[in-house]
Amino acid sequence: MGARTKSKLAIIGAGSVGSSLAYASLIRGSARRVALYDIDGKRASAEVLDLAHGTQFTGSSSITGGDDISVVADADVVVITAGAKQEPGQTRLDLAGTNIRILEQLLPKLVEQAPDAVYMLVTNPCDVLTVAAQQITGLPRERVFSSGTVLDTSRLRWLLAERAGVATSAVHALIVGEHGDSELPLWSQATIGPVPILDWELPDGSRFTEQQLDEIATDVRTAAYRVIEGKGATNYAIGLSGARIVEAILGDEHAILPVSTVLDGYHGVSGVALSVPSIVDRSGVRSVVEVAMSPREEQQFADSAAAVRASLDSLGL
Amino acid sequence: MGARTKSKLAIIGAGSVGSSLAYASLIRGSARRVALYDIDGKRASAEVLDLAHGTQFTGSSSITGGDDISVVADADVVVITAGAKQEPGQTRLDLAGTNIRILEQLLPKLVEQAPDAVYMLVTNPCDVLTVAAQQITGLPRERVFSSGTVLDTSRLRWLLAERAGVATSAVHALIVGEHGDSELPLWSQATIGPVPILDWELPDGSRFTEQQLDEIATDVRTAAYRVIEGKGATNYAIGLSGARIVEAILGDEHAILPVSTVLDGYHGVSGVALSVPSIVDRSGVRSVVEVAMSPREEQQFADSAAAVRASLDSLGL
Amino acid sequence: MGARTKSKLAIIGAGSVGSSLAYASLIRGSARRVALYDIDGKRASAEVLDLAHGTQFTGSSSITGGDDISVVADADVVVITAGAKQEPGQTRLDLAGTNIRILEQLLPKLVEQAPDAVYMLVTNPCDVLTVAAQQITGLPRERVFSSGTVLDTSRLRWLLAERAGVATSAVHALIVGEHGDSELPLWSQATIGPVPILDWELPDGSRFTEQQLDEIATDVRTAAYRVIEGKGATNYAIGLSGARIVEAILGDEHAILPVSTVLDGYHGVSGVALSVPSIVDRSGVRSVVEVAMSPREEQQFADSAAAVRASLDSLGL
Amino acid sequence: MGARTKSKLAIIGAGSVGSSLAYASLIRGSARRVALYDIDGKRASAEVLDLAHGTQFTGSSSITGGDDISVVADADVVVITAGAKQEPGQTRLDLAGTNIRILEQLLPKLVEQAPDAVYMLVTNPCDVLTVAAQQITGLPRERVFSSGTVLDTSRLRWLLAERAGVATSAVHALIVGEHGDSELPLWSQATIGPVPILDWELPDGSRFTEQQLDEIATDVRTAAYRVIEGKGATNYAIGLSGARIVEAILGDEHAILPVSTVLDGYHGVSGVALSVPSIVDRSGVRSVVEVAMSPREEQQFADSAAAVRASLDSLGL
Repeated sequence: MGARTKSKLAIIGAGSVGSSLAYASLIRGSARRVALYDIDGKRASAEVLDLAHGTQFTGSSSITGGDDISVVADADVVVITAGAKQEPGQTRLDLAGTNIRILEQLLPKLVEQAPDAVYMLVTNPCDVLTVAAQQITGLPRERVFSSGTVLDTSRLRWLLAERAGVATSAVHALIVGEHGDSELPLWSQATIGPVPILDWELPDGSRFTEQQLDEIATDVRTAAYRVIEGKGATNYAIGLSGARIVEAILGDEHAILPVSTVLDGYHGVSGVALSVPSIVDRSGVRSVVEVAMSPREEQQFADSAAAVRASLDSLGL
Repeated sequence: MGARTKSKLAIIGAGSVGSSLAYASLIRGSARRVALYDIDGKRASAEVLDLAHGTQFTGSSSITGGDDISVVADADVVVITAGAKQEPGQTRLDLAGTNIRILEQLLPKLVEQAPDAVYMLVTNPCDVLTVAAQQITGLPRERVFSSGTVLDTSRLRWLLAERAGVATSAVHALIVGEHGDSELPLWSQATIGPVPILDWELPDGSRFTEQQLDEIATDVRTAAYRVIEGKGATNYAIGLSGARIVEAILGDEHAILPVSTVLDGYHGVSGVALSVPSIVDRSGVRSVVEVAMSPREEQQFADSAAAVRASLDSLGL
Repeated sequence: MGARTKSKLAIIGAGSVGSSLAYASLIRGSARRVALYDIDGKRASAEVLDLAHGTQFTGSSSITGGDDISVVADADVVVITAGAKQEPGQTRLDLAGTNIRILEQLLPKLVEQAPDAVYMLVTNPCDVLTVAAQQITGLPRERVFSSGTVLDTSRLRWLLAERAGVATSAVHALIVGEHGDSELPLWSQATIGPVPILDWELPDGSRFTEQQLDEIATDVRTAAYRVIEGKGATNYAIGLSGARIVEAILGDEHAILPVSTVLDGYHGVSGVALSVPSIVDRSGVRSVVEVAMSPREEQQFADSAAAVRASLDSLGL
Repeated sequence: MGARTKSKLAIIGAGSVGSSLAYASLIRGSARRVALYDIDGKRASAEVLDLAHGTQFTGSSSITGGDDISVVADADVVVITAGAKQEPGQTRLDLAGTNIRILEQLLPKLVEQAPDAVYMLVTNPCDVLTVAAQQITGLPRERVFSSGTVLDTSRLRWLLAERAGVATSAVHALIVGEHGDSELPLWSQATIGPVPILDWELPDGSRFTEQQLDEIATDVRTAAYRVIEGKGATNYAIGLSGARIVEAILGDEHAILPVSTVLDGYHGVSGVALSVPSIVDRSGVRSVVEVAMSPREEQQFADSAAAVRASLDSLGL
């Protein structure tokens, strides 16, 4: 009876993203059981040991792992962080080919171990990989998605909150589209508390200009590059973003989060995975949420779809 | 040095609201030190004992209290729950006279003990009492406010979330005006995720009608009466609402919450306390947030102000 | 798939204990789903409404309830707080007959709804009722127990921590035996940090005397009476104690807690339910823990067993 | 007024330990404000950015930092993780000379910025560095200590809990002495729940043998080496250990933790810093706790003191 109500999270890849995601999940109690798998068993075991050594301070969750794929067995959620990582100067799309080949090896084995799990990709370029993963597994689209622009959205809200002089929780704004260079903020629907973003009175009495918002969007878009330049990788914020999405799944929250699924007629986009506001619950992505866009946003969204489409085409997907 | 960084919450009134607020605060760790004061020392001591008996399970916060006003000394926040309570069938405004006389006795003694504190009223009718408390104490308006429609807003979000099939955190909607019969939801600014409330697709494929929204607003407005009818009082949700506001203050959060302060030229209202979206931080209510209203909402807000104004007039305030 | 990993807690009885336990569980996230059942449907619905109104502030747990027994369906844990309550001056044992008759009505219906649940009694006199409940249901002993002296132990630790000048978490001491007048602290095994209780240096440089410890034990034993005298009932600490035990069950923690099960040859006691240190996990009480007792403690424990035995005999159990 | 009750943690060193400690602190809400300082400003800024990008998911704490020492100003607690790090195969004592020279540069500047702070060293060899830091700063011993064997103790409890079949929180055992090769478990005072460690019945019905306990102690002592071999460093468990100690300080908890301070006549040891059970509160290490030792433990503790003494001598301290 025990296992029945003990939620299990499997994390694939014991690099800095996977292990940070495990760390955040253990501290937050996102899942009762966390398993960390990596083909580099020595690395996986070392991370598991380091994580387990801190569990005196983290409640009742447990951590296991290694290079035996069976550690994934019966997971409720599988988060994939494995893959070649983005180098300084490299675009997210350049990584695609290598990482698709990794998924072709990995996914069939994972689905064998955890046939009922929800699968979330964190590896980049996550939108392209979501399409590939859906094709490789044949799983329904709601059960194969990526963390998409949840991280970019968190970056955006932090920047806006700092400027606006309010708590991050008071900023309602979303980044949609590709998790990458063609992403876009939905300024037309952004508010601070109940106030449209352009009407918000800043602490100095002024209001945001469109130019300032464009600069903030650029800041968000280039944030990863700056972090990578300074420390070689991003791991902490993506770790928390991933843990948060896992909680929305395991808690059957029906939370609205901008994750990336293969779209079907969403603002004219089909067969491409892009982040759009989505209802996340125990079934994965229960549904995507139709949202109004300004003409400029419509164009940017179409451009973003085209950018990912081009990558898919060149990869034969 | 110890006391300097140990935040202190004083709760006035050890009835079911005050003690539930203390309970929620201890469990959530809203403040390091909680003090519960009541003129009925036997009651206060019994509640303190019952609360203290559970602190094995609630981290490092402590609880003290009794009928000696000095337990309030040096509080950072003082929450007032004392007063005659709303009887079944009684309107919130009927309570006013009695509770103003209680405040006249109480407030000077409290300000003597905690001259730098932020004061929050939970006692009803809280809008009328906020005006009275501000006049009695002479404190700046940002440091004397009431929990107002934070509770009503929580009720509204829960109802909308249930109907809309989303997490409560995805519902952005506010009740403003009087915490009472003349309150109003700001439907014109309400959204679910990034979607205006009237455009949200319900699980059955339909959309909210204006009539349904009116019914939900009525449900919220009468919720307290139904709870009181069934259990004689409301205490749990108001306890959590109060603890949440205390956290926004002590955490210097700059959170946006619909608390009630004496307004000064807000949508034409001055000298009356009403709930409007406000930035809450360590200074109390740092500022109120200008929000757009539809013509109907403007009228309802003016009517709500007039209702409270009438009470104030009849009470000589 | 959703329900499979969503833990469910059913609470029977919507009085002040049951509703406080629900409140604590929702705030702490002890279970994903909480159901509150009471034959007084109006009361149950009012409590559920008051609890639900606060869920904006409590994460992803949900609350339902009413007077329809089917709200209990498929619960993982059932906590029973229903029953006549202890009046001022009344001993816990006097309540027994009435509450056994309530259990005879209630338990078969509950087991029908939740055949695989772990059952925990909070209603008093809980030791006597545990024996009755086990006989009524025929469930294995590990799945029918009571919260026992978890609450008394929490009271003891708080008192010792206050005197010793340390955090409650540093006090390792247990109350065992009847949850009532014949209970006893296991002083012989009590420590503060790694220091035996009698060797601990108090802030004033002195050490505890045996007389002081006896007074503290008396304080604990009479604590409920003092709380009841001041506020008519105890509810907050027992609510937290219950929520904590529920977490140990649902989290499959293997925590050691002094809960009360029907003993079988434990320090010579069989067929009587008494609190002893026990390993609590998803199966309920996995096992009781053998603990050394001083000759005096052996005698007190035997006396406590005899006291409960006498009650059982007079009730024909 | 705001800053008065907003606790501030400054972390010195933005390497993997410092940033993990910041991450754990932000997720747990250990302090309201976290500042991360490093002479490598580019690294510090990148870590701060990565941490800030996740604050949408971590409540009301804030993170700042960089290479300007003034980010440390007015900290309540300063945690030092800066220093050369332990290489595979290198003993902790070999690092000492280099890191003392770093402290000589750093500490006067830190004390200038945060004259009232409590200082905690995490850099290794932490016992030797604690003596050096106390001499460099001239601060009272209670305000200059190191995290010592809090981490080793957490490792020990996890191993024992796994073997004993109980929650980690049920294991009461301590590692004392040097944070390094000469450390020792205080088996004579170790218990599982209320049961002495040697009397605990294991899941297979057997009991621990002294040889098994020796092997577990060896496992703990060599754990860091195995983690370093597999992943190049340890960071997660030490991050959590550090965050936990910070909470004990800022929460004025009077928690009992095995941190390392310069001893004065403790089991015959003076002038050497070693970890012993200590009461940690807002003043830092309020006092060390006298604990009984077996003759073998007395000898091991003396040997551990001698090992650190030898290092201090060779370093001229």
